[in-house]
Amino acid sequence: MTIENISCNKAFDGWHKQYTHQSTVLNCAMRFAVYLPPQASSKNPVPVMYWLSGLTCTDENFMQKGGALAAAAELGIAIVAPDTSPRGENVPDDEKQAYDLGLGAGFYVNATQAPWNKHYQMYDYVVDELPRLIEAHFPVNSQRVISGHSMGGHGALVIALRNPELYRSVTAFSPISNPINCAWGKKAFSAYLGEGADVWKQYDASELMRKTTARIPAMVEQGSSDDFLEEQLKPQALLKAAKVSNYPLTFNMADGYDHSYYFISAFIEKHLHFHALNLGLIKAQ
Amino acid sequence: MTIENISCNKAFDGWHKQYTHQSTVLNCAMRFAVYLPPQASSKNPVPVMYWLSGLTCTDENFMQKGGALAAAAELGIAIVAPDTSPRGENVPDDEKQAYDLGLGAGFYVNATQAPWNKHYQMYDYVVDELPRLIEAHFPVNSQRVISGHSMGGHGALVIALRNPELYRSVTAFSPISNPINCAWGKKAFSAYLGEGADVWKQYDASELMRKTTARIPAMVEQGSSDDFLEEQLKPQALLKAAKVSNYPLTFNMADGYDHSYYFISAFIEKHLHFHALNLGLIKAQ
Repeated sequence: MTIENISCNKAFDGWHKQYTHQSTVLNCAMRFAVYLPPQASSKNPVPVMYWLSGLTCTDENFMQKGGALAAAAELGIAIVAPDTSPRGENVPDDEKQAYDLGLGAGFYVNATQAPWNKHYQMYDYVVDELPRLIEAHFPVNSQRVISGHSMGGHGALVIALRNPELYRSVTAFSPISNPINCAWGKKAFSAYLGEGADVWKQYDASELMRKTTARIPAMVEQGSSDDFLEEQLKPQALLKAAKVSNYPLTFNMADGYDHSYYFISAFIEKHLHFHALNLGLIKAQ
Repeated sequence: MTIENISCNKAFDGWHKQYTHQSTVLNCAMRFAVYLPPQASSKNPVPVMYWLSGLTCTDENFMQKGGALAAAAELGIAIVAPDTSPRGENVPDDEKQAYDLGLGAGFYVNATQAPWNKHYQMYDYVVDELPRLIEAHFPVNSQRVISGHSMGGHGALVIALRNPELYRSVTAFSPISNPINCAWGKKAFSAYLGEGADVWKQYDASELMRKTTARIPAMVEQGSSDDFLEEQLKPQALLKAAKVSNYPLTFNMADGYDHSYYFISAFIEKHLHFHALNLGLIKAQ
């Protein structure tokens, strides 16, 4: 469990840092980014928000473009951003190097099918290996919240709904809410999990939310002008599921916003406050 | 003076947009970005902050990574970010494609030497052509402020000091403060302006500030852990010049910060407030 620091930038009196490490579950070298707010110290460990990015992203997109660091520094929340897939020369990619399968498109599942299953175990990486690494090396406590965008919004919702004991709250920006019924999800799940496998439903936020008895507070932000809204994201499936199970889901339709980081940056402060409230860092006003 | 819209993203209730246009002074097609805050309308034109980026950047870096849009939206200031050099297949680049000469490195001067002089006229583009275009096409007034980073901090200071009637205030992040005495400046000025030309001093913020009688409020932010501080940026030359001319320069040394956009994002709100104060949008507290 050694990690190697490769970059370091002061920001809002805290520190943004990137590290590499050898991942056991992914069977390759991985890079992640961490933001440590100024409050974080060995005497004052802080909670962590795990951020899962969308298709084509790395650990860098959210840290550079998300506009989250000011609020994280103010509230005293660390942020950890993993990569979106295993990486490296030995890791298989899609034959056509498609943006929505293989490198940059791990979909936060544990692949069962060759050639993917040797490396594409992003679910276990995010739920288990990465937090253990973070909690061993940084001044953080074991209080976790999770958030993400698009493919990463799907990942955040699925991971929180399947592990309600590990997360205090979950939020998502434009999540792929019902992957078993959209092209992105069908393509990735077919490749990683096999055709029509029962396991698909274990990675579908709407399926999970409809049946869960868990009650982790959840908030979803969706832009009304998002090009992927109808075909890929399908938030109505999630809303329907929340209604069935009476799930505490706050859903915000943001008029005129699209799928970009400009949208995320405009609402990330609200999401960090939502997490801070559920972490007990601030009180409801 | 036609412009073509190529992208549009809602952000903080305002709009980030990119446009292309045929530049007369640069003799090529150019792209620029504009952020219009929610207050901007034909009945309520808003002031503009021109942002000049550093080496290797385009119109995108500041808009995506600067973290400026929240404060711009709150204060009612439009932001315009041009590219950092002329662009296109017909525009000459450095033979070795160096990052500090040619494409991405226009240094905001009017080149006099071949092969640069046909296109590299960034000073006239920023001072004259671009503002005329902006004021003709967008709901802005003629009140301008200017800011920039590194090579763009140099550009902002030089342009404001040479055109005190056009700008209400100027700020710079880690500016190249004395280009006639650093490697970046000597290389670029030799190529664009010729060896040892008298005109060099007309593009040197320290030379200009030492002799000016202008009194545009100026603020400079510098990270103390900036790798380029001693060799390239030389803020002490600017401080010495300000002392000689008794110039109203506020200089902030930010302990531990580097040359990156993480640094800029941590202080851009303060700079926008400085501009807003000088634009009369807010009052001193």
